[in-house]
Amino acid sequence: MKNIFIIGVGLIGGSFALDIKKLHPDSTIYGIDNSEAHLAEAKTLNVIDKAAEFKDLQKADLVILAIPVDSAINVLPKVLDQVSDNAIVFDVGSTKEDICVKVKNHPKRRNYLAAHPIAGTEYSGPKAALQGLYNNKTNIICEVEETAFKLQEKALKLFSDLGMRIRYMNPKAHDKHIAYVSHLSHISAFMLGKTVIDKEKNERDIFDMAGSGFESTVRLAKSSPAMWTPIFQQNKTNVIETLDEYISNLNHFKKLMQEDNFEAVYNEMESTNYIKEILNGIQ
Amino acid sequence: MKNIFIIGVGLIGGSFALDIKKLHPDSTIYGIDNSEAHLAEAKTLNVIDKAAEFKDLQKADLVILAIPVDSAINVLPKVLDQVSDNAIVFDVGSTKEDICVKVKNHPKRRNYLAAHPIAGTEYSGPKAALQGLYNNKTNIICEVEETAFKLQEKALKLFSDLGMRIRYMNPKAHDKHIAYVSHLSHISAFMLGKTVIDKEKNERDIFDMAGSGFESTVRLAKSSPAMWTPIFQQNKTNVIETLDEYISNLNHFKKLMQEDNFEAVYNEMESTNYIKEILNGIQ
Repeated sequence: MKNIFIIGVGLIGGSFALDIKKLHPDSTIYGIDNSEAHLAEAKTLNVIDKAAEFKDLQKADLVILAIPVDSAINVLPKVLDQVSDNAIVFDVGSTKEDICVKVKNHPKRRNYLAAHPIAGTEYSGPKAALQGLYNNKTNIICEVEETAFKLQEKALKLFSDLGMRIRYMNPKAHDKHIAYVSHLSHISAFMLGKTVIDKEKNERDIFDMAGSGFESTVRLAKSSPAMWTPIFQQNKTNVIETLDEYISNLNHFKKLMQEDNFEAVYNEMESTNYIKEILNGIQ
Repeated sequence: MKNIFIIGVGLIGGSFALDIKKLHPDSTIYGIDNSEAHLAEAKTLNVIDKAAEFKDLQKADLVILAIPVDSAINVLPKVLDQVSDNAIVFDVGSTKEDICVKVKNHPKRRNYLAAHPIAGTEYSGPKAALQGLYNNKTNIICEVEETAFKLQEKALKLFSDLGMRIRYMNPKAHDKHIAYVSHLSHISAFMLGKTVIDKEKNERDIFDMAGSGFESTVRLAKSSPAMWTPIFQQNKTNVIETLDEYISNLNHFKKLMQEDNFEAVYNEMESTNYIKEILNGIQ
């Protein structure tokens, strides 16, 4: 792997660039980005070696598409149009069904691997790129059978070198399940932040009372709206389903409180304490 | 301060014990707890020096009442009945109105300081006690004018030695505001955990897809139901108000998605990104 192209030199693409450069010091990392400022910053920070353009993709051995999912769906076919038969292209988006449908009949479908590394932080841009971000993280691969076997091997070797665990799913199941453990968490954090900010407008100094618990629960409300809006749009049906269930659970909890049924309130919390064991499994 | 009594030798009481022993190595730390097992554990871990009983409180210089708020409200008058005129007693509960009302006319009201240190973790019991837990944390003091001046001074000196910032509030305002930045966060985390656990029952392996974002948002769902149920009970009216606003914000977000108004979805998130600056202020 000599010529590596990162399309979108932000947190996710930039973190791949840093680790791949370390694994393959002789490779050249090319960056492609809509933002000239981000490209310049990525060069200054040594996240990429060189800025490049779409026409340069023909010499690519590996292309990582790390841009918001609404752009990715439009850019992926153009990338596949450019690359050689030996190039492996993977995306990193948090929705998988629409993008897989989009390139289903593309003549170069076999060059594409649909991936979703479950990694990131609430920050964005090239300066948010982190070495080792993918170590011990899960990478979900969809429709693996649609990718050429030799190119699968290439990508899986890279993921393994980066320290990632692989899980195979179909795109529909991926989008449905990820709505619960990722998309809903973001909405719950954003709306919690909004509720408290709205209150603070009228009642000053509320935040003086906030501790680390609030901070942890609301952390994801720092996330980029440019990244998350298209995710919610592409995964609309599943996200609305999770929101319905979440709101219904909140309403039930409120009703128990209104009825002074604090024994049931206790039980609701005790049965959810089981999350401890699950979270220990994540770490 | 020679004789320090900790009633409730868990995370909060135990952490005070550890820091006070460090500040005052010549003091004796007495522990009182309903649980013999916790008392024994606290002694083994050197969180306390000796187990004690209520009648021993007459020799106390300082009493810290660190038990769930439903017990605290019943135990505080009994503590005040026992202590000498020179003892300072403070509680640490997350609700302040009911307890202040309860001891309003107690002959030893001047010996009590109503406090709420905004500190903790999602763990509980003596083994959860941490040195330095209170350093750089906020301590909210209510009705300070009801405490004897000399005893206020004693307590404030201790809080300052522990590295705490002091904020003065009336109990009503405390309970109203803390519902937003603490109590609501706990319910949002518990119900998020419940929503995902319920789903997992039917669809296996969802948690394999969870990353650090989910973990952070749901962390508080590990908290103790024995501690939190009485808090929600005592602060019922305020908590229900915050829940109403939170549920209404979630419903509004859902409605925007249903209407395909993703420009508005973007704006909802962008305006809540302001939480970044607020959280930087907390750290």
